[in-house]
Amino acid sequence: LEVWDSTIKKGLNLDMTRGKPASEQLDLIKPLLLDTSLAEDYRSEDNTDCRNYGNLDGLSELKRFFAQYLDVTPDNVLIGGNSSLSLMHDTMASLCLFGAANSDGKNHVPWNKDDSKKVKFLCPVPGYDRHFSLCEKFGIEMIPVPLKEDGPDLSIIKPLVATDATVKGIWCVPKYSNPTGIVYSADVIKELAAMPTAANDFRIFWDNAYQAHHLYDRKLTILDVLTECARAGNPDRVFIYGSTSKITFPGAGIAVMASSPNNLKWFKKLLFAQTIGPDKINQLRHIRFLKNMSNLEDLMNKHAAIMRPKFASFSNTVKAFLGPEFTGLFCSEPQGGYFINLTLGDNLSAQKIVSLANQCGLKLTPAGATHPYGKDPDDATIRIAPSMPVLADITKAARIVALCCVIAKRKLDV
Amino acid sequence: LEVWDSTIKKGLNLDMTRGKPASEQLDLIKPLLLDTSLAEDYRSEDNTDCRNYGNLDGLSELKRFFAQYLDVTPDNVLIGGNSSLSLMHDTMASLCLFGAANSDGKNHVPWNKDDSKKVKFLCPVPGYDRHFSLCEKFGIEMIPVPLKEDGPDLSIIKPLVATDATVKGIWCVPKYSNPTGIVYSADVIKELAAMPTAANDFRIFWDNAYQAHHLYDRKLTILDVLTECARAGNPDRVFIYGSTSKITFPGAGIAVMASSPNNLKWFKKLLFAQTIGPDKINQLRHIRFLKNMSNLEDLMNKHAAIMRPKFASFSNTVKAFLGPEFTGLFCSEPQGGYFINLTLGDNLSAQKIVSLANQCGLKLTPAGATHPYGKDPDDATIRIAPSMPVLADITKAARIVALCCVIAKRKLDV
Repeated sequence: LEVWDSTIKKGLNLDMTRGKPASEQLDLIKPLLLDTSLAEDYRSEDNTDCRNYGNLDGLSELKRFFAQYLDVTPDNVLIGGNSSLSLMHDTMASLCLFGAANSDGKNHVPWNKDDSKKVKFLCPVPGYDRHFSLCEKFGIEMIPVPLKEDGPDLSIIKPLVATDATVKGIWCVPKYSNPTGIVYSADVIKELAAMPTAANDFRIFWDNAYQAHHLYDRKLTILDVLTECARAGNPDRVFIYGSTSKITFPGAGIAVMASSPNNLKWFKKLLFAQTIGPDKINQLRHIRFLKNMSNLEDLMNKHAAIMRPKFASFSNTVKAFLGPEFTGLFCSEPQGGYFINLTLGDNLSAQKIVSLANQCGLKLTPAGATHPYGKDPDDATIRIAPSMPVLADITKAARIVALCCVIAKRKLDV
Repeated sequence: LEVWDSTIKKGLNLDMTRGKPASEQLDLIKPLLLDTSLAEDYRSEDNTDCRNYGNLDGLSELKRFFAQYLDVTPDNVLIGGNSSLSLMHDTMASLCLFGAANSDGKNHVPWNKDDSKKVKFLCPVPGYDRHFSLCEKFGIEMIPVPLKEDGPDLSIIKPLVATDATVKGIWCVPKYSNPTGIVYSADVIKELAAMPTAANDFRIFWDNAYQAHHLYDRKLTILDVLTECARAGNPDRVFIYGSTSKITFPGAGIAVMASSPNNLKWFKKLLFAQTIGPDKINQLRHIRFLKNMSNLEDLMNKHAAIMRPKFASFSNTVKAFLGPEFTGLFCSEPQGGYFINLTLGDNLSAQKIVSLANQCGLKLTPAGATHPYGKDPDDATIRIAPSMPVLADITKAARIVALCCVIAKRKLDV
C-alpha cells in the first residue's frame, strides 16, 4: 500500500489507449516533408498532372507498389484517401444500401433491405473496437467468435455460416492481430476462403493493417487470401484493406483496398458519385519516399527498432513484478503489430484494473473495448498500446499495471 | 462548308467538358509544394502533432479561416478531407440511412426507410451533373425547377414544398451558379430559409463552390443563409459546402462544411465511425499558404486575371461570328465561377451542336448533363468550360461552336 501511495503521488500522466506511433517514429518520415520535387515534377508515370482533377482509383505506380505490399496483382488494387477505415466504412455502407456485387454484374439484395432479417457479422474476440463501431453504425448484429493462436475458431464458424443466411460476413485482422498479435495459419485462411456459406453474398473484411509491421527479424508471411478465394470458387468473397498510417503518417498517409475485378468494378461505380478522386499529390509524395519493397523493409526495420524495446520492457516488467503468484495471467508476446494483450485469469477484473491504473494517471484502453458492444463476458482482457510513450514511461506503466493486479488480487482497499 | 472542311482538317484536340483550372493557375500554388516548414514545425496552434492520429473535424486555425471564407462562425464549421462532393455524399447517405437530426437530439425517419414514399429533391436547372448523380445513387427522385436570374423559381418551389412532405430538399449553387453564373438575391435566400415546408426534415444543400471565384473587380456577395435559416426558426435547414479545389489544387485541397451546431453534432457522431480524422498535415500546409482573407483575395485576383480573357474571348468570338441572325441564342456573361452557359433558341439542338463540335475535335460537356437524368426537355443548353485550355485554343473553340450553330441552323449536311 505504501508503493501504491507513492505511485499515486508521482502523478504520472500517460495515455496508452490507442496504437499511435511515437514521435521518434514520425521523425523517420521527415524526408517526405522535405521533398520539394513535386513543385516542378508533378506528373505521374502516365503523364497525369497530379495537381489537377481526375483519377478515381489511384496512380498506376501506387497500384504496383501496394500490389507487391499486399501480395496481389495491380489489377486487384484500388488506392483510396487517407484512411483504410473509411474504405471499410464505405464498403459496408454500400453493401447495406446497394447490395453486394453478383457474378452476373447485378447486385444482391441490399443488407438493410429487410428489417425482419437482421444481418449478422462474426467478430473474432478479442478484436478491434473500430470494426465493432462500424457494425453498430449500420445496425449489424455482432456474434463474438473466439480467436485462437492460428485464427478464429472454425469449429464454431463453419456450422454457423453453413446454415444461417443472415450471417453475411466476418472481420479478420490476419497478421499480428489487434490486440492478441496472432497470425492466421495457412489452413485457417484456406478454410475461410473455401467454407460453404448459406449466404451467397458472404464477405470477409480482411484488415491487413500490419502486413509489414514486424517487431523481429523473423518476418511472418500469410497466405494470399484473394488467390485462395478464387481457387475455391469464391472470387468475390474478400475485401482486403491496408494503409501507410503506421508506415508514414497516421491521417496523412495512403489507404488501399484489394479485391476481385468484379468487386472493384462494383465499388468504383459507387465511388464515382462520391468523389472526383483521391489526393494524387500525396500519392506521388508517398511513392517518391517509399520507392520500393526493399526501401520499405529498411524503413519498417527502423520502426521496429524503436518499438521492440518498448514491447520487451512492458512484458518483462509485468512478468518480473507479478511472479508465480499469478498463474492465470497471460501477457502476449507478439511478433509484430501494435499491441500487447493481457489475459487476466485469477478472477481478476479488467474493469477494476483499468480503473485502478487510471487513478495512478495511466490511461488504458477501456476494458471491454476488445469485444462487441464493449462487453467482455469474462471481464478478463486488457489491450496495452506500448508504441507511443517513451521507453522509460513504458517501464513505469508496466509497474503500475502489475501493481494494480496485485492490489486487485489481494483485494486491498485503495 | 469550305470553312467546315478546313476546320475538320485542322484536327483540333480540345477537351472543354469539365471545369478544371489551367496549368498556369496551378503554377500559382507552387509555394505550397515548396514549403518544407512542416518537417520541423508540425504542430497546430493547440500544440497537436499533426503527423499523428486524431482531430475529427479539423484544426481550429482552419475553422477560423473557413468561417471567414464562408461568412459564418468557427463553431459552425467542420473541415473535411479533399472533396466537398464527398461531404455532400456522406450527408445524403446519412440522411437516407439514419435520418436527419431532430431538435430533440434524436433523428427523423431515415429517407430510405419507406420504399412506398419515395423521397424527392428539387433541382434548379440548368445545374451541376454531380449533384444529380448523387440523387440518382440514393434513389431520390429529382424534380427540375427553372433557375432564374436571381435564383430558383420560388413561385414553383413554395407550393410544392408546402404541400408535399416527400419533397425533402433542394440543391443550390448560390453564387456564380454552375453553369449559368447567376447569383441568388437576398430575397430568394430569405424565402428559401423561411418558406414553410410540409417535411420537417427539409434540407438545403448549399454548394457554395465559387464563394471567392470572382472574374472582375466587382465582387458579389450573398446573404449568410445559415443566419437567415436560424432567424426564420429553421436553424437545421441548411448544409453549406465549399472547398479549395479551385483555390489551391483540385483533389489535393481542403473541403469544408458549415451548418448548425445540432447538424454538426449529428454529422460528427456518424463521421466518428468512418474515420479517425482528416489529413492534418495538408491542413497545416494550406493555412500556411493561404494565411488569411486578404492573402486569399490576392490569390483569387491572380486566378481571375488568367480566367478573365478566356471568358471574354469565348463570348465575344461567338457573338461576333453569329451576328443578328441568331436572335434566340443567349451566351451568359458570368461575373465569376467556372462556366459559360449557351442557351440556344432558334430551334437549334444542343445534342446536334455538341456532336458537330466533337467531329471537329472539340469535346464539350454532353448536352443534357445540365439536367436531371441527363434529359434537357428543350435540348437547348450547352455548358462551356473555358478555364483549362490556353487562350488561343479558346478562340478556336468559340469559332467551332459558332460554326456548328450556323451549320445546324442552315441544316447543312456535313
